[in-house]
Amino acid sequence: MTAPVVAVVGGGQLARMMTPAATALGLHLRVLVESATSSAAQVVVDAPVGAASDADAIRALVAGAAALTFEHEHVPNALLDELVAAGTPVRPAAHALRHAQDKIVMRERLTELGVPCPRWSRVTSAADLDAFLAGGEGVVKTARGGYDGKGVRVVRSSDEVTDWLAAAADGTGAPLLVEEKVPFVRELAALVARRPSGEVATWPVVESVQVGGVCSEVVAPAPGLDPATQAAARDAAVAIAEGLDVTGVLAVELFEVPGPDGTRVLVNELAMRPHNSGHWTIDGAVTSQFEQHLRAVLDLPLGATEPTARWTVMANVLGSALDDPTDALAAVGALDPGAKVQLYGKEVRAGRKLGHVNVSDDDLDRARSRARAAAALLRGEPAP
Amino acid sequence: MTAPVVAVVGGGQLARMMTPAATALGLHLRVLVESATSSAAQVVVDAPVGAASDADAIRALVAGAAALTFEHEHVPNALLDELVAAGTPVRPAAHALRHAQDKIVMRERLTELGVPCPRWSRVTSAADLDAFLAGGEGVVKTARGGYDGKGVRVVRSSDEVTDWLAAAADGTGAPLLVEEKVPFVRELAALVARRPSGEVATWPVVESVQVGGVCSEVVAPAPGLDPATQAAARDAAVAIAEGLDVTGVLAVELFEVPGPDGTRVLVNELAMRPHNSGHWTIDGAVTSQFEQHLRAVLDLPLGATEPTARWTVMANVLGSALDDPTDALAAVGALDPGAKVQLYGKEVRAGRKLGHVNVSDDDLDRARSRARAAAALLRGEPAP
Ligand SMILES: Nc1ncnc2c1ncn2[C@@H]1O[C@H](COP(=O)(O)OP(=O)(O)O)[C@@H](O)[C@H]1O
Ligand SMILES: Nc1ncnc2c1ncn2[C@@H]1O[C@H](COP(=O)(O)OP(=O)(O)O)[C@@H](O)[C@H]1O
Ligand SMILES: [Mg+2]
Ligand SMILES: [Mg+2]
Repeated sequence: MTAPVVAVVGGGQLARMMTPAATALGLHLRVLVESATSSAAQVVVDAPVGAASDADAIRALVAGAAALTFEHEHVPNALLDELVAAGTPVRPAAHALRHAQDKIVMRERLTELGVPCPRWSRVTSAADLDAFLAGGEGVVKTARGGYDGKGVRVVRSSDEVTDWLAAAADGTGAPLLVEEKVPFVRELAALVARRPSGEVATWPVVESVQVGGVCSEVVAPAPGLDPATQAAARDAAVAIAEGLDVTGVLAVELFEVPGPDGTRVLVNELAMRPHNSGHWTIDGAVTSQFEQHLRAVLDLPLGATEPTARWTVMANVLGSALDDPTDALAAVGALDPGAKVQLYGKEVRAGRKLGHVNVSDDDLDRARSRARAAAALLRGEPAP
Repeated sequence: MTAPVVAVVGGGQLARMMTPAATALGLHLRVLVESATSSAAQVVVDAPVGAASDADAIRALVAGAAALTFEHEHVPNALLDELVAAGTPVRPAAHALRHAQDKIVMRERLTELGVPCPRWSRVTSAADLDAFLAGGEGVVKTARGGYDGKGVRVVRSSDEVTDWLAAAADGTGAPLLVEEKVPFVRELAALVARRPSGEVATWPVVESVQVGGVCSEVVAPAPGLDPATQAAARDAAVAIAEGLDVTGVLAVELFEVPGPDGTRVLVNELAMRPHNSGHWTIDGAVTSQFEQHLRAVLDLPLGATEPTARWTVMANVLGSALDDPTDALAAVGALDPGAKVQLYGKEVRAGRKLGHVNVSDDDLDRARSRARAAAALLRGEPAP
């Protein structure tokens, strides 16, 4: 038995969903989990408990590993550099990962690379911010630690972020940036994988629907997307993967905005790992983002990214009125034998991402309503 | 956390391949494994070690389980009946399972049900056997314990099975049956799932290619299969599932034989669990046989069985010249980014089923040659 060991930091649903691909490819997954009951810990045999910031835990994690990778961005970069120096392939490496850890670092670098972004500025004072806003609306973000819309506020005045400004100033909070409020027609995501030896592979660009800063639905491919806009989105994703030396899966969140002729894209933010916008690939593409991530971090040739259906819609299950969404499996099965349910084994909490449903269909409207109906049942609501 | 527990007896690749579906549906798999390093033990968190014949191990396995099921047929039936009496749903139950445990019991019951079988007879003496053979060829089988062609001999005379006859007579070996040697044009398999409340679902009938009694390749759907023959095969599978009260997945191995008008089918044998002839469903159908088996044994509505591609070919990896087939992952990926590899985590031994490859393609010849080429690489041979 010489199964290559892939070490993963983080025990959430992203690590959990790596398991089918690891099993199929005969890889050994070793996952550092936050607790013995976390999402990935339930289904990973080799799942030591420890904190991502615990240097000893990380060092133990990588013993004998062919690669170290992540399902979140919270490992100290100095430690990652130490591991690389000691011979562990860290993928992505700290010099790439910091662009997914810090939105200011990301904006600076993308601007250097000439990748189209919203107009933005780093702000260190109320005066800075108000000058940028100039009486209009803008989007203020904490540079680090934000997710699912936490760390994002649409504001008209620095008064609305006095708490964040104070925390940034005294160092208890992250630095801040402000962006123009982009008048997007919709949000897109471009998913790309890149392996150390340079090969890249992209999936079709998708539409991602956010509600209250949280992804609620993804449609693959993005309906009615202009081929030029699709190409621009893919090109931006590849340029970023190459420019930042990303290894593994990179998700690029984009705004589609009206342009002089047709639409164009601006980059919102980056994730260097499998991403919610790519969950559709589990049931809707030849190679899922999870399999691709494992291939990429091991520097194996990348898998085919063709969709296996005309349309695949992914609907997130955000919160549930049920004790456990598994209580709805019979109802979902009775309603829709083709709905592909993925549950994360998490305890129910309001608004929490508990799972998702993929539905593939030749008809887009039907795919969307089927996915929504199944997700509603898993939330304990009647199917709409 | 109220994840339903599914208890499974047997730690081979069939239990291993149940894990992705269990994870997706949020089910807790508890698998009784032969050893801590067996195929399933590598990827199942809750995997007690014990023998299928160990009553205490089985009783511990089912504690709190919503259902008990199997990846092989070797649990003593008296014990299964005891568990049912104590309230554990055993699926399939012993009264069904014995038809997959004993080829004589199976032949008797199918004959009663009017399901077409090869001409057959139970034999207890050389004289019985030679009378059946009448100077021609026949196929002698041990009623119990055979698999992968072990326990099957094509003979012209009782002299060729003196050892088996002696063992059957003194009780050290299984009883014997003899069958006409069927002049089949090819072998087919019909896969059906049935849940306790009665719902059944069938996948398209497939062609299964055996080499030396071992399945080497499966083509889904069976190319050029006459619709009437396809219907007859499906009908036979459904009749057997219902007639024998099977719950879970049932694989019916069939011979396609020339008939008066067109071809017809004769049943070879039964497996009451996911089966090698159904591995194509992992990548080629909306619902895999493994997900379906879990749904069925939990009495959940069955999933859709439509193929997701025109053709899917499954090629087994039987033995390997490599230390470990994972050594060929790079070569397979480089050759064919769309080949779906499934490795079982088993140590290499001559002829051993180490994994399989699924390839979906619009073109049948290409699907077949792609699957064969990838499997050859995993066997450590040059791609043909
Ligand atoms: N500059 C912007 N203009 C308009 N909407 C924005 C802007 N930045 C973010 N948003 C909205 O807020 C959501 C969350 O912002 P994002 O930076 O992606 O934060 P998070 O890290 O929490 O995902 C985006 O998906 C988008 O809907
Ligand atoms: N009656 C028969 N006539 C012709 N070939 C047979 C017959 N029975 C079995 N075979 C061949 O032997 C193979 C193995 O027989 P089977 O009864 O399925 O044993 P096993 O339990 O080992 O799979 C079959 O797949 C078929 O190729
Ligand atoms: Mg975002
Ligand atoms: Mg057989």
